[in-house]
Amino acid sequence: MKILVVGSVALDSIETPFGKVDEALGGSATHFSCSASYFSKVGVVGVVGTDFPARHLEFLTKMGVDTDGMEVASGRTFRWRGYYEFDLNHAHTLATELNVFEKFHPKLPPDWCDAEIIFLANIDPELQLEVLEQVTNPKLVVCDTMNFWIANKKEALNKVIEKVDICLMNDSEAREYCQTYSLLDSANKMLSQGPKTVIFKKGEHGALMFTDSTHFSAPAYPLEEIKDPTGAGDSFAGGFIGYLAKTEDFSEQNIRRAIIYGSVMASFNVEGFGTDRLARLEVPEIGQRYLEFKEISRFE
Amino acid sequence: MKILVVGSVALDSIETPFGKVDEALGGSATHFSCSASYFSKVGVVGVVGTDFPARHLEFLTKMGVDTDGMEVASGRTFRWRGYYEFDLNHAHTLATELNVFEKFHPKLPPDWCDAEIIFLANIDPELQLEVLEQVTNPKLVVCDTMNFWIANKKEALNKVIEKVDICLMNDSEAREYCQTYSLLDSANKMLSQGPKTVIFKKGEHGALMFTDSTHFSAPAYPLEEIKDPTGAGDSFAGGFIGYLAKTEDFSEQNIRRAIIYGSVMASFNVEGFGTDRLARLEVPEIGQRYLEFKEISRFE
Repeated sequence: MKILVVGSVALDSIETPFGKVDEALGGSATHFSCSASYFSKVGVVGVVGTDFPARHLEFLTKMGVDTDGMEVASGRTFRWRGYYEFDLNHAHTLATELNVFEKFHPKLPPDWCDAEIIFLANIDPELQLEVLEQVTNPKLVVCDTMNFWIANKKEALNKVIEKVDICLMNDSEAREYCQTYSLLDSANKMLSQGPKTVIFKKGEHGALMFTDSTHFSAPAYPLEEIKDPTGAGDSFAGGFIGYLAKTEDFSEQNIRRAIIYGSVMASFNVEGFGTDRLARLEVPEIGQRYLEFKEISRFE
Repeated sequence: MKILVVGSVALDSIETPFGKVDEALGGSATHFSCSASYFSKVGVVGVVGTDFPARHLEFLTKMGVDTDGMEVASGRTFRWRGYYEFDLNHAHTLATELNVFEKFHPKLPPDWCDAEIIFLANIDPELQLEVLEQVTNPKLVVCDTMNFWIANKKEALNKVIEKVDICLMNDSEAREYCQTYSLLDSANKMLSQGPKTVIFKKGEHGALMFTDSTHFSAPAYPLEEIKDPTGAGDSFAGGFIGYLAKTEDFSEQNIRRAIIYGSVMASFNVEGFGTDRLARLEVPEIGQRYLEFKEISRFE
């Protein structure tokens, strides 16, 4: 199945206790695409400025990502600058320059309006709604968001959540969105709005899935080497949706497996800065780490 | 196998967003004993003041806990007063009155010196060492601690950790003790000091076990009802050690199962204030929740 993603493409400047990087290729659509490209065909819709290095577009193409939906607008590319301290679950933002993103409206290439799977990555929920108006007959729609939109575009976000099959959020975002500390209450509230499945990403603590009748707790993977957590959530989404696209099976059992593949891809993503680690990932490493996830969560 | 526990017996005054309680029976040895009593014979060594209500001792006896090692000293019982906000992972201490604990030195009843399993619950590590000098031939020694001893009695704590088979800590305590953010590095450092197994308790996020060659990630259990997290870690230890005592099997595979039983007992403990929920637990509920833990962590 083809996956269409709309989201940000950015130049990220990041410092962590383990190093730093300047203007690395980043953004939600980028991390997602790199991750999902290991499983299925991905087309990205987004915008960059005229200053966007050609090598980054070439890199995405080399990863097998279709960039026909990537608009080049006059102006500067979206930039994010931030740092992490030893608690790598918490990003500190130093600067966000929206630049060409301020006037962006997604336009789907004709070939991609019929994509079977749509991922509305973290982006203004009004733009997420514009994407849904352009798709013809998706079989699965998944969304993500962030605290900024929960605080500032709640109504538009409500509309998005009503229209999706699966909603992804960080656990802290779910608590903020639902105004309750209980993740179970948060899940039930969100499920009542429309989605059949909600998934809460918990960074180093794994992930939780809820449906109206079941839940699943994906294990935490103890990493030997964490360099940069930026994009972990989008890499999770990439592995998760990529696996669903590859297997064409949206059953609860397969969604569990897909969550583990998402966790696998996130665990690789954080081993390098930006997209470094996913860029040099070997396919057998994915299956190997999946087996490690099985081993670390096994009990009789 | 018989389990001997040394730790605190306290009167706890606790407020959470879900209610409050005044001078409830608490303390590390208490929560541990109540939990472990569902699995095996437990003897408790601790101290209370002359003001300690007789009904609390009667309650422990009714739970099957041997209180011969409970000293009644002249003075007031140890008291703790604290509260939790919506983030129930973090206790805010308002007052700690050591009272009779200040001059306490554990004295094991003769019948309990030959206990097969020793649990050194959270208590001054110098007292934990005094207990180890009195036991004759334990088959398994497990310790717990807290940030106060890490900060103030590091040397004594080092000696304790060198002498135990299994070391339990909260994840934040392990990071503080090992002075590293990485839990994997923390585990390796602690394993190099002597223990064959270390277990990091992560509250609502589950637990992690490390040996020199394997690790295990126990799932988070999404609770419908959390009233009071006080004693969750000790209830975890009670279910964990209780199950090992009952099965008399310290293999890595059985330790995994024991961690789930620990998680089960902790999940019940937090459903009531103090020992309320464990006091009215029915044995079939334990097996039922164990199966729920299997179900929520299952994937193929």
